This record gives sequence, C-alpha cells and structure tokens, in this order.
Amino acid sequence: MNFSDKMDDYKSWMSGINSPDPHFLHMMVIITDIERSLRFYRDGLGMKLLGGFDVEERRVTALFVGYKAGAMAIELAYYWDHPADPVTHGTGFRHIALGVPRLEETVARLEALPAEIYMRPTTLVEGMPRAAFVKDPDGYLVELFQTLNA
Amino acid sequence: MNFSDKMDDYKSWMSGINSPDPHFLHMMVIITDIERSLRFYRDGLGMKLLGGFDVEERRVTALFVGYKAGAMAIELAYYWDHPADPVTHGTGFRHIALGVPRLEETVARLEALPAEIYMRPTTLVEGMPRAAFVKDPDGYLVELFQTLNA
Repeated sequence: MNFSDKMDDYKSWMSGINSPDPHFLHMMVIITDIERSLRFYRDGLGMKLLGGFDVEERRVTALFVGYKAGAMAIELAYYWDHPADPVTHGTGFRHIALGVPRLEETVARLEALPAEIYMRPTTLVEGMPRAAFVKDPDGYLVELFQTLNA
Repeated sequence: MNFSDKMDDYKSWMSGINSPDPHFLHMMVIITDIERSLRFYRDGLGMKLLGGFDVEERRVTALFVGYKAGAMAIELAYYWDHPADPVTHGTGFRHIALGVPRLEETVARLEALPAEIYMRPTTLVEGMPRAAFVKDPDGYLVELFQTLNA
C-alpha cells in the first residue's frame, strides 16, 4: 500500500491544525493489518482517513484517522517488516475514549464487522452517559460514550 | 488526595463537550504518583487540571488534564492500592503528540522539572515542523511539534 502521494495532504492537514495555542495532535499505535484497521476505524467508528504517508527509510506507513481534519487523530503505524507476532499491551496505557451520538447503533455496526465487544452499553457511573468498550483489531481498547445532545 | 468534590466539575465538563458529532474525549493511562504527574502535565506541559473524581468502589482517582475544557484530554488514573511496581509498556501504544508554540522553551521547562528528554528538538521529516520527544514520569512518550503560527 503506497501513500506517498498523500504526503501533501498530510502537510496541509498538519499546517491546518496549527494555532498559537498548545493542542493535542494525535496518538500513535502500531497496527499489523492496514485494511483490517481501516474497517474498524473508518467503517466501524465512522472516522475519516485524514492523511497518510510512507517513510521509506524507516519502512513504515503512517495513516491518520479521525473525525475532523485539524482535530485529534489516531496515527496508525504499519511497519513493513513487522513480525507476524501481535503487538503487546502493557499495564500502563488503557484506552481511548470517544463520544458517539448513537451508542447502540455504533456497537452493532462494530459487532457486524466483526469486532470484539468488550463491554456492552451500560451505566458505569450514576448520572454519567452510558458507555461501552470495544477492541480494535490489534487489541486496543476503545471506550464509547453516548453523547447527550444527539 | 480527595477529588470527590470535583465530581460536579467533571459532569459539567463532560456535558459541555457533548455535541451531535462523534469526537475524541480522552485517552486513559495509569499513573503511580499524582503530584509527580501533575508537575509534568501541568507545570511542564502547561495543561490544566480540568476535573477529577474518586471512584470509591474501584479505589481509583481519575484526573483529567488538557489544554481546554471540552477538547481532548488525558485521563490519569491513580489506583490507591497499586503496587509500587512501575507500569509496563507494550509494543503497541507508542506516543501522544502535541503541538506547542515554543518547542525549545517547553523542552527546557520539562528538563528542569526534571523530566527525561528522549529526543531533543530536530527535523524528523523534511518540510515538517521540528519535533522532540519527552517521557512522562511513568515512561509514556510525548512527542512535541513546534506549531507554525506561534
């Protein structure tokens, strides 16, 4: 998969999010199958592929997925020579949390991919919106909160 | 450290960020020393303590740090009975990336805390803003990009 032609997209996206104020750009995770991850984040969670590029000398493809150009994104890094071994998860990083307008619908769509539903929609803390947990194809936990004003 | 009185803050912050559109809320990481982490994220990186609360039944304090209420945040989770062992880092999650208006100044401030400077400011990709890597007190990598329009 070659994303070299998207380098300019990434540059313009990168410059587009610049502002005098400090802000979050993205979080980076290793993936082991580009198409499988895109199914999860794009088809399942409804994110857009915001940009991507190959870094030839490091033999890696970096894809940026998110809901809006200029806002927080996830960088999915696919190393061309990665071993077939799955990525490992330490005890430190736990999950990424998203707000979604239709929690049940989103969970059903992910389940149909299929993706692993780690915890079905429930009320975690009294008075807070309902939430669910799903796992991305490499095992990263994603917490989904029902937004209130949908 | 008791943040129970901040629960309302958190609720209002949570409802404040709701919108009909799907969006990023936060990423959650385990920390082992609240004051040390606040020095890094608040004093070093200039984030605000946006909210926090104790979950008595799970014996955990959750603190939310970020640059702006209603925007992406980091949830720092401190388990009261955590072992003294440091958190472990797998091969999957790599780093969180931030844009900052004064890269050198930010790195110098972090170094003075002291925090570990993993990679000093440099040009990673030709044509892209300069970047540096620092480590938070629990070993999470933070990538800092110099914003363009500072």
